[in-house]
Order: sequence, then structure tokens, then C-alpha cells
Amino acid sequence: MAAAAPPPPPTSAPVTLPESDPSGNTLFTRIRLATVDDVPHIHKLIHEMAVFEHLIHLFEATPESLANTLFPENPLPPFSSFTVFLLELSYMPFPPTPQNEHFTPILKSIHLDVPIEDPGREMFRSKAIDVSVLGSDVIVGGFVLFFPNYSTFLAKPGFYIEDIFVRECYRRKGLGKILLSAVVSQAAKMGYGRVEWVVLDWNVNAIKFYEQMGAQILPEWRICRLTGVAWNIL
Amino acid sequence: MAAAAPPPPPTSAPVTLPESDPSGNTLFTRIRLATVDDVPHIHKLIHEMAVFEHLIHLFEATPESLANTLFPENPLPPFSSFTVFLLELSYMPFPPTPQNEHFTPILKSIHLDVPIEDPGREMFRSKAIDVSVLGSDVIVGGFVLFFPNYSTFLAKPGFYIEDIFVRECYRRKGLGKILLSAVVSQAAKMGYGRVEWVVLDWNVNAIKFYEQMGAQILPEWRICRLTGVAWNIL
Repeated sequence: MAAAAPPPPPTSAPVTLPESDPSGNTLFTRIRLATVDDVPHIHKLIHEMAVFEHLIHLFEATPESLANTLFPENPLPPFSSFTVFLLELSYMPFPPTPQNEHFTPILKSIHLDVPIEDPGREMFRSKAIDVSVLGSDVIVGGFVLFFPNYSTFLAKPGFYIEDIFVRECYRRKGLGKILLSAVVSQAAKMGYGRVEWVVLDWNVNAIKFYEQMGAQILPEWRICRLTGVAWNIL
Repeated sequence: MAAAAPPPPPTSAPVTLPESDPSGNTLFTRIRLATVDDVPHIHKLIHEMAVFEHLIHLFEATPESLANTLFPENPLPPFSSFTVFLLELSYMPFPPTPQNEHFTPILKSIHLDVPIEDPGREMFRSKAIDVSVLGSDVIVGGFVLFFPNYSTFLAKPGFYIEDIFVRECYRRKGLGKILLSAVVSQAAKMGYGRVEWVVLDWNVNAIKFYEQMGAQILPEWRICRLTGVAWNIL
């Protein structure tokens, strides 16, 4: 398990697709299903998350191991197993996206007081849309990884969010809410009962953000973990 | 999510398949994949668990809703989605089980000081084996429901145990360990990284049992839950 590291509450509310804004004060956002081509970016995002959480000693993922386990040769349908939504950002509007059998990308935009300085721009440039088509770079700003869980009391599936992450320079803009909402909308569309995740008890900013989103924090439950090293005793 | 309600540490260690024991002091156990025919028993087990946990107000499952969600029309392969192992008990040895593509039932036995009085014997009689074949009733004693989860730090799937439950009259005999071991063995066989579940912090017997099984209890993580009623704010 890795942590949820969301931004605090948004300072500006997301609005729907305005026209292109040459001042650079409108940041256009797109949520889409990740593919195996996105693995190098996903790997770097998970690494940044491990650094943020001071858990780098637990980080063992490689681009190869992520590709093999998240995008196996015989994949299950989207949303029935491990699923990654990628958050892409651009200062030009994204082109309209054709309807998709499984998931139609979600387009939104946010207003910025000043354009954002992104020191990782080169490293997180998305190859999904050619810059010459859009007239602007597309930058990967974050991701959410989730999969189905199940409540026996409800007799319903839900989604469990393993990771939700927004890169540091893009935090406090409402992008965490856009990512979380995308998972919740998908759960609602599928008639699921709950969306759950975990948070570190010292991460008070995240807890406050989640509570403002309407989440309950369950105080009594503790996670139990058996790892490979302990399996021989059974 | 519903709770794990395991028995405390076993007082007698499981041993491998002895001969039939006419004294009734040997309880033979079988772990097998549940099927849709087991749903009435699974429903009653979940109901007993809700009573045990004083969470009956959260119990909404019906046999129909369980059947639709656990055994859908187009099921995914076992272990890639919601999976139920059923624990069956008999005072006569189970017949040998043919190799199965997905899972070969696990046969064990435990020694009892005295035979167990089971007040729910009628209600929990398994129909999987005819009594005239075995020479003894087969009784459903418990279950475990689990599904895959994923660690981005390990880049590996694992299993998450949603429920593990042994009926009250069969507790303190090592049957919880037999159920948990079955999940752990399956995880090991599939090369998975971890098996995880949650426990209520006041359930000190369960916590002690899990720690003796080699599990870590993670003190810092808290569960966050968004339910349907809160989704409209997003």
C-alpha cells in the first residue's frame, strides 16, 4: 500500500471548458485511462510519491515490473482490475474526444492567478498529443490508481484507491478533487456502493481535504499486513 | 467493508489427513472455492458476522444481491476478482479431490478433546457431498472472502481479505488459521507480494492472533470512506 497524498482544498473551483486563454492563466485538464505507453511517467510519479512520504526504502517498482503487472498480456476489462487514470495539463484546450466504449476522457479547466512554474516539465511531457497539433505541450500532472473492492454487508462492489497523487508544483489548485471526482463518478455510473482509501493519521491537511469532500474517516480500523517473509510460518 | 472476526490462537495444531476416527474426536476440514449454490450459506455466515460485530444496522445483503455480485453471468477467472473459500467440516474424511485447473481443495484435520455441539447444524448442512456417500454430514464452518489488491511500491498484486469468519461453536480450534493459510498459500503460489486485511482496534484477541501469525499491525493508517450519499457534492 502506498499513501494518498492529495492537495488541500482548491482555491479556485473547476469550470467547464472555456476557449483557449493566451494569457496562460487557464489550465486545461484531461483525465484519461493510462496505457502501457504511460508507464515511464507513472513510474516517475510513484517515485515522487515515495519521496514525499519518506517511504523511499519501500520503493521497489521498475518500469518493467509496473508494465507487466498493470498492463499484462491478457488484460481484464478496464475497471474490473487495477486501473490508472492519468491527469494531463495544457495551456491550450484539449481537442474533443470521441466517445469510448469504456471511458470518455473528462475535460475541465481551472483558473490560475499566475501561470505555474514547472521544473519537471521536460521529464513529464506527455506523448499522447503532438505539440504541433495542440499548439502547447501536454504535461502529466498526477495520477490515481484504483481497483474494485467488495462490501459483503452491502453485497456491492466499490472502488479502492491505492494512490492519488498530484505533482508538487500543481498542488492547491483543485486537481486532487478532479482526480478523486473522476473515480467517484465512475463508481456512481457503475452502481457501486463506496469509494475507499487510506490516509496517514499525521497527514492533517489531507484528512481535512477528504472530510470536506464528504468522506468519513474511520477511527477504529487498523491495517494488518502479512508479507512474503512471514509466509513460511503458516 | 466488514470486519475480520477470527478465532484466537489454535489450541491444537492442524495435522494431515489421518484415517477416519469413529470416536468423533477428529474433525476433518476442507477448503474449496464457493459456487453460486453456496450463496444461502454465505448469506447466513455474513449475517452471523454482522451480529457478532454489532453492525447489523449496516447489513443490507440478500441472497439475490450476493449471487448477482459474487457470481455474475460473465465471471472473471477465480482469484482475479471477488473470491470465496468455504470451510467445510466433517467427522468422516473427505474423499480425495481431483486436480482442478484453478484450485485443488485443501484437506486437513484437527484433533478435538471432545466432539463439538453445533446448534446450527441443520442450517449449515453443506449439499456439496451426499451424506450417504461420506457416511457423515458436511457442515459449513466458516468462509473467507478476498480479492486482488495492488502495491505500487512493490509493483505487485496481493490479496485483500474483506471477511474471515468461523462460526462461534468452532472457534479456538485453529480453523481461522486454516482459512488464512489458504489465502496466503494462494498468494505465494501466484508470486504476490502481500496479504492485507483490517481489524477493529478493540478486538485484542484478533490482533494477538494475527501478530502470532506473523502479521504487522500498521498503527498510522486510517480508512477513508465516501458513500453514495456524499457523491452529489463532487
